Parts: sequence; C-alpha cells; structure tokens
Amino acid sequence: VSLVAPRWAALANLRAARSLLPSELVPPLTRTVEGLGLVCENLQVTGSYKVRAMAYWMARFASAVPKAGLALASSGNFAIALAWAGRRYQIPVTAVMMRRSHPWKVERVRALGGQVVLCGDSTEERTQALASLQAQGLQIIDHLNDPEVLVGHSTLGLDLMHALSDAPSTVVVPASTGGLLVATALAVKQISPTTRVIGVQPEGANAMVTSFHSGKLQRLDQVVTECDALTANLPGPLPWELCRAWVDDMVQVSEQAVRESVRWLVEEAKLVVEPGGAAGLAALRSGQIQDSKGWAILSGGNMEPRRLSQWL
Amino acid sequence: VSLVAPRWAALANLRAARSLLPSELVPPLTRTVEGLGLVCENLQVTGSYKVRAMAYWMARFASAVPKAGLALASSGNFAIALAWAGRRYQIPVTAVMMRRSHPWKVERVRALGGQVVLCGDSTEERTQALASLQAQGLQIIDHLNDPEVLVGHSTLGLDLMHALSDAPSTVVVPASTGGLLVATALAVKQISPTTRVIGVQPEGANAMVTSFHSGKLQRLDQVVTECDALTANLPGPLPWELCRAWVDDMVQVSEQAVRESVRWLVEEAKLVVEPGGAAGLAALRSGQIQDSKGWAILSGGNMEPRRLSQWL
Repeated sequence: VSLVAPRWAALANLRAARSLLPSELVPPLTRTVEGLGLVCENLQVTGSYKVRAMAYWMARFASAVPKAGLALASSGNFAIALAWAGRRYQIPVTAVMMRRSHPWKVERVRALGGQVVLCGDSTEERTQALASLQAQGLQIIDHLNDPEVLVGHSTLGLDLMHALSDAPSTVVVPASTGGLLVATALAVKQISPTTRVIGVQPEGANAMVTSFHSGKLQRLDQVVTECDALTANLPGPLPWELCRAWVDDMVQVSEQAVRESVRWLVEEAKLVVEPGGAAGLAALRSGQIQDSKGWAILSGGNMEPRRLSQWL
Repeated sequence: VSLVAPRWAALANLRAARSLLPSELVPPLTRTVEGLGLVCENLQVTGSYKVRAMAYWMARFASAVPKAGLALASSGNFAIALAWAGRRYQIPVTAVMMRRSHPWKVERVRALGGQVVLCGDSTEERTQALASLQAQGLQIIDHLNDPEVLVGHSTLGLDLMHALSDAPSTVVVPASTGGLLVATALAVKQISPTTRVIGVQPEGANAMVTSFHSGKLQRLDQVVTECDALTANLPGPLPWELCRAWVDDMVQVSEQAVRESVRWLVEEAKLVVEPGGAAGLAALRSGQIQDSKGWAILSGGNMEPRRLSQWL
C-alpha cells in the first residue's frame, strides 16, 4: 500500500526544506553499537533535533517576521532551538516556559540571547501568556499546528535515509505531541514504504500510545515521568491526524528502562542523551520493540551534568 | 623546512595501513563546539583510538602469529583494543595489566574474550610477566618499540586530514609514552607541514614534557594523576627519538583543567570522554595552548559511569 502525503509534505518539499538548513547544522551521526543503530541527534547544534524546524522556519520566513519578533511555548528543547535560530537569523525571540521547566534549560535559552516568559504550569496559563505576547505584536509559532514545523523536523528522516546504505527495517522515535514521529514517518516512508516507523512514550506520559490504540484522542489528567522532553498530555492535532496512516505502532516504556538506556549510552556509546531522547532506544533494548537491527533516534542530549550524575 | 619521515612512516605506507583497517572501525567524528575542534575518537569502536593499531597489526600479520597467540602490557585501553581485535581476527590474546589498572577496564578485556594476567604495579614485575608468557610460546607486541604500532596510530591523523576541508593550524594530542602524538605528527605534517602538532600531559605525569624541554630523557619517580590512560613515567623510546623533530611543542595541564573539560564535554558537547582523553582539550580551554581554532583529539571515552558521576 502506497501512502499519499499531504501536499505540504511531498518529498520534493521536504528536500527543499533540507536545502535551506544552515551549514552549522550537522547531519546526524549514525553509529552501530552492539548491533543497535543509533541516530545521534543529541550531538546536533543546541543538543536536540528541534533546531532543524526553527532554523528552517526562519531561513524561509525571516523577512515576514514583525519587528517585535517571534514567540513560542516550550518546556525546553524547542525554546533553546528558538533562541539559537533567533541569534543566527537576527530575529528577537521569546520563549514561554512553564515554571516547572528545568532551570538548566531556561538558563540555556537566556544564554543564547532569548527572552524567557515564565508562566504557571497549566495549559491555560500558557495560552494566556502567548496571547499577551501576541497583543504586544509578536508573531506566535504554533508548533503543534504549523505544518512547516513538521517539514523542518522531517529533515532528520531525510538525513538518516541518506546516511544509511540499506533502508532500515525499523526506525524508532520518541514521542511527546508526536511531531518528530510523524515527520520522520513522512520522510522515511516516502523513500522506503516498507520501513516500520514506531513511536515510543514513557508509561507515565502515554497519551499518544492510548490514543493510537483506542483510535480516539485521549487526554491525560496528569503526566508523571522523568523524561522532561516528553510531557505532552495529549497528541498534537496535526500529528494525531497523520499518525493513524503513517505510524506503524506506538509502544510505551518504563522509567526503569529509560534509566538503564541512559546509563548504557554513557558506558557503551560514550554519549550523553537526556531521558526523553533515550526512550526509543529503551524500547529496543527492553524488547518492547523486537528488531535487533532497528535504528533508534536519540532526539536530544540536554541534561544537566548534576542530574546525569544522579542517574549514573 | 621539510621533514623526512623514516622509511616505515612514509606517507604511502601510512595510507596502505589505513586501507587495511576493517570496516567496523569508524572515521573520527569531527565537531566544532564553541569554535573548538573536537576529534571524537572516544566514539571509536572499543572507546579509544588504540583499536586502530591493533586491528591494523592483526590484519597485516595475523597469518604469522603463533598458535598460543599474542600478548601485550597495557593499563587499559590498549588491552581492550587487543581483545577486540583478537576476537575480530580469531587470535587468542592475553593482556598483562598492573593491579592498579582500573577494574572496569579489566572487566572490558574479559568481556571481549581476552585473557588477563594481573601483575604487580612495577615495570619489573610487568616485564617478568611478559617474559613468562613469551616462554609459553606467546608472541609479545612491544607497543613502545614496534614501528608498526605507530603506523596503525597514524591512521587517525590521516582520517582527520581527510575530514577537514582546510588544513588545521594546530592539532593537540594527549600523550603518555607519546605514541599517538608522534604518529599523528607523522601523518599530519607530511600532508600539511605548517600545521603545529602539540602534545599534552597532566602535571603529575609529565615525563615527556620535561624530556622535550630539557632535550634529555627524563624518568619520573612517581606519577600522580587521575588520567589513568596517561600514566607513563618516561617517553617511549621510538616516540622520544621522533618527537624532537616532529612535535612542535609539549605542554602540561592541571588536574583541575582536565576535570573542567570532562564536565564541559558532557554539558556542551554531549560526549563522554575519559580524563586522559580530555587532556588536549584542557590545554586549549585553559589557554596553555592559544589557538581559538585548534583541533583537540579526544583520544578515549572509557570511563566507568560511577566514576564519571563523581566527576560531574
């Protein structure tokens, strides 16, 4: 069965987006350790894949941005990527971050020259903060609904397919609202329709897993996980719409399996990967996904040294 | 002034060695973080560059090895590389390791199928242990005197020059007995004579620094450093002979500077690098070597998670 991508996600569009990425961004390092494929996007500029979407977005739309600049809401890695791209494209940027956001990530945003607006830990307070910035003339990037953000994310899948000489049997992707997951599926499956693309969430933040398997959008009342990059309490609208056709399966992993994979990555692969970034690998290593030749996207590496120290 | 390499180190010979390396070995990842060039040989198979020498040596000489196999003396990374290559080329191997060797590294050797002979912490006891193995029919690889080991090491310098589009102004290399240092200089300076190649040692294990600057071989009575891969108390004979012509300078760094660089690598580069592997970077970051565009070889990443945890 051949899938037909939405027009904005046609392979040629994704490839055009890839060509707009600035040279500072690096192709993902791919490594095989004990047979498992690792896609080391933790080594990407800013320490996560999110800079792909932000750099692409600004490279494409910088000239139309209002003087007051851009804003978005993020628990961390998106905000860091926004700040990096804002500095790169000389656009003032503001990140709305919940108070529960990791202080180390807040500090990273500021160090890159981004403004930070801290808001309460509810979706309502965050929406209010964004509305207030919009009233002040800032343009809001709605990264849950903007197809261009998914186009930016998709460049990782393109790079991965370019890096591998054989099409992978399985690509495993950590999921929060599901943006990277569906973007990867759009890129990978237009090139290799038989490759399985599987999303992974921690047990305590499994909104997309339960939604996928019930076929109905599920919202979690609370989210309990150490994976601070994977705390969405429901799938993003656009990822949700696309995931039923493009994603092969969704599985969940225990916090213990994530912890074990973070430690394994340090010991065996010499890589620092944050908990959320290691969730996909944890599914392969714990047997939740069975493919001894599967490829796991390590989506981010932003973990405070002191916190990593406790995990080891 | 154009240097003339010894015949065994002629560029064509080094390139021929590179062509013998098995495909499991990976070209060094090069990354620029905050302007500093990182040569991530910590991500090499076995977690250090030493597998280059062992894999090359076995690829070339496997057919002449006696049935009892090969042995060498090593504090850790060489022994791990020996074990990996022994498994790869189906040759029985034995590592003579001093009792002070890090238990985690001893365990790695055994996990790869290598035999370990533990000996006392003196050069004499080690020599005795090797002699006893030789009497049992094993062939000893004398990695301090065997030019072929330096030929194997030199493939890292070749790979580095291949990876960079412009010749680097400075390449900084951690040094213990100095094998990697002079091997890198032989490779790099035959391709780019104006590139400076500088060796770095920790203050408490600076035999090669003092030898280089005094022009006379210096032996240390004791070695005090956390850099367990850099504990030589005098330069290797062959590196010593070559370093005066081929190495541009030798500097030393404090334990504190090494510690700070190990931490910086985790926080900013998302890389796990062992203390000795970070000594070169420490010289660039602490200003001991002044070149904001210098390249530091991160020579190894074998550090027990528990120990890394204490360093963070």
